[in-house]
Amino acid sequence: MSSSSLPTFAAPTFADVQAAARRLEGVTLRTPLLENARVNAMLGGQLFIKAECLQRTGSFKLRGAYNFLASMSEADRKKGAVGWSSGNHAQGLAEAGRLLGVKTTIVMPADAPALKIANTRASGAEIVLHDRVKDSREEIGLGIAKKTGATVVPPYDHAWILTGQGTAGLEIVEQAKAAGVTLDAVAAPCSGGGLSTGIALAVKGLSPTTTVHAGEPAGFDDLARSLSAGSKQTNAKLSGSICDALLAPTPGDVTFPLALKLLGPGLVVTDDEVLDAMEVAFREFKIVVEPGGAVALAAALTGKLPVKGRAVAVVCSGGNVDHATFARALARRPQ
Amino acid sequence: MSSSSLPTFAAPTFADVQAAARRLEGVTLRTPLLENARVNAMLGGQLFIKAECLQRTGSFKLRGAYNFLASMSEADRKKGAVGWSSGNHAQGLAEAGRLLGVKTTIVMPADAPALKIANTRASGAEIVLHDRVKDSREEIGLGIAKKTGATVVPPYDHAWILTGQGTAGLEIVEQAKAAGVTLDAVAAPCSGGGLSTGIALAVKGLSPTTTVHAGEPAGFDDLARSLSAGSKQTNAKLSGSICDALLAPTPGDVTFPLALKLLGPGLVVTDDEVLDAMEVAFREFKIVVEPGGAVALAAALTGKLPVKGRAVAVVCSGGNVDHATFARALARRPQ
Repeated sequence: MSSSSLPTFAAPTFADVQAAARRLEGVTLRTPLLENARVNAMLGGQLFIKAECLQRTGSFKLRGAYNFLASMSEADRKKGAVGWSSGNHAQGLAEAGRLLGVKTTIVMPADAPALKIANTRASGAEIVLHDRVKDSREEIGLGIAKKTGATVVPPYDHAWILTGQGTAGLEIVEQAKAAGVTLDAVAAPCSGGGLSTGIALAVKGLSPTTTVHAGEPAGFDDLARSLSAGSKQTNAKLSGSICDALLAPTPGDVTFPLALKLLGPGLVVTDDEVLDAMEVAFREFKIVVEPGGAVALAAALTGKLPVKGRAVAVVCSGGNVDHATFARALARRPQ
Repeated sequence: MSSSSLPTFAAPTFADVQAAARRLEGVTLRTPLLENARVNAMLGGQLFIKAECLQRTGSFKLRGAYNFLASMSEADRKKGAVGWSSGNHAQGLAEAGRLLGVKTTIVMPADAPALKIANTRASGAEIVLHDRVKDSREEIGLGIAKKTGATVVPPYDHAWILTGQGTAGLEIVEQAKAAGVTLDAVAAPCSGGGLSTGIALAVKGLSPTTTVHAGEPAGFDDLARSLSAGSKQTNAKLSGSICDALLAPTPGDVTFPLALKLLGPGLVVTDDEVLDAMEVAFREFKIVVEPGGAVALAAALTGKLPVKGRAVAVVCSGGNVDHATFARALARRPQ
């Protein structure tokens, strides 16, 4: 079936996140909640990192994609799934398809890094390359769906996707609790809002007093401005941040109502603050974080998300960064 | 009491590792056992990484140091502990002291990287700097022990140290089992043999058919040669490998009998193979591994430790690497 005939949903709930967690058991890694005594001393509080860069496929995206495919009917799964992405969603969806035996087709720009195309193909996905300037990837993807009966798997704006991503939030609260900690705040990177609203559903369900925040790059802070305005705002630019994973132009139709209800004020950081956060993640936490994956950490390290006297968890959501960009982060503090 | 009056021990056993695990519960991180579908496909087998670089203090050393201090009598703990190290043992011991309220004194070379000295001091250790050429750090350390009654905490050659390190081995077997896997082989980096023999005790206790191997840098393969010869051999050089954490000149008196009994043939890798392994750890597993921490992974990636058709776990034992060295690893495969 095409995406237009997907069942319609009531607003996703905490119980939906719990159901997603059961589907993902034994599939996704329960990524560690890392802590560092020196960083805590520097910030005067307790900072935890949920290291989703260590997740299979290098980002949290496998959670939502797998939950989506696993929620489809057997008949629909036989007809395959189609998506478009040049980044983490492509790899997450392709790997979810491989694990569940669902044929996936991914529309990717012909000028995407060769490594990302190869990685997506390595999971068994069929890759359809498009010209970023001349072609509409949505049109190509919808055309494939119409012709083959494949289901379109959107990157964020769907209950099955965001409740899958939300399973990371369940783990954060449980892991903090096991460490004897009730969190004051949780923050996650935000592009279209699937991760941040899914996590908010989970965190608010388990720990209602904890605030949840979405982080965005400066100039691409559509959600922060939308939350302030109470209505959907759009970014002026479509490119121009080092955070290539966080450039969605406006909040989603499914995610924004949840964001309005569940999220605290947005957090906005600069590219330089992101590079500094990547360097701290390297030096103190020994993890590789991509620029878009580091925005919530950057907010905590700069005090935009206060840690002093509090217990705060930030999601480092992905680690798919090229060598040259990582070298730029290292160069921020040469030893 | 000084180290010479420490109680003598029967050879450490599997039960000692289990006792250490109880002491470390809630103190050390249960580091994840990572797996990567692409790397598995490339190797034609199943490779797991035990990511001890994510451990508190950036290496496995906290396990042994904490187990040591926690095993001391209350009276001895009040007199403090002393050690000498320019690297991971210093940070592990200092942090163990902070956690247990034991005053630690660490003898460090005055020309050690400023960051390592600062990190050790940040855990509350008193730092005594020595001249690497003119002074004997052992003499300085033993002098402090004699004067203050502090207990000397050796880096590897002690039952309390190696059984603490062995707790990583318990976790490896348990985590593999949870993934439905019985391991064919486990490998860990080796300097004096505390980590590899501790892990061997643990692994052989839980999974007798699994072979356990120690990895060393070429030119510093004293254990591999000692295992072949059946008697302790010594390295010709004291420096000259990128693996600065793995330069012990000869196997320990406590560790070698265990190594002879429990370990399979040694694995020896070059500096270039180590840098390549660090790059794979960055690109595929999203973790930061220091050169000495990557030797077992290097052995698996080069086929010296066969993975094809098998299930193998390697310990990436630390992530305390400077920016310039890490940039060298990144440059092995510029994108």
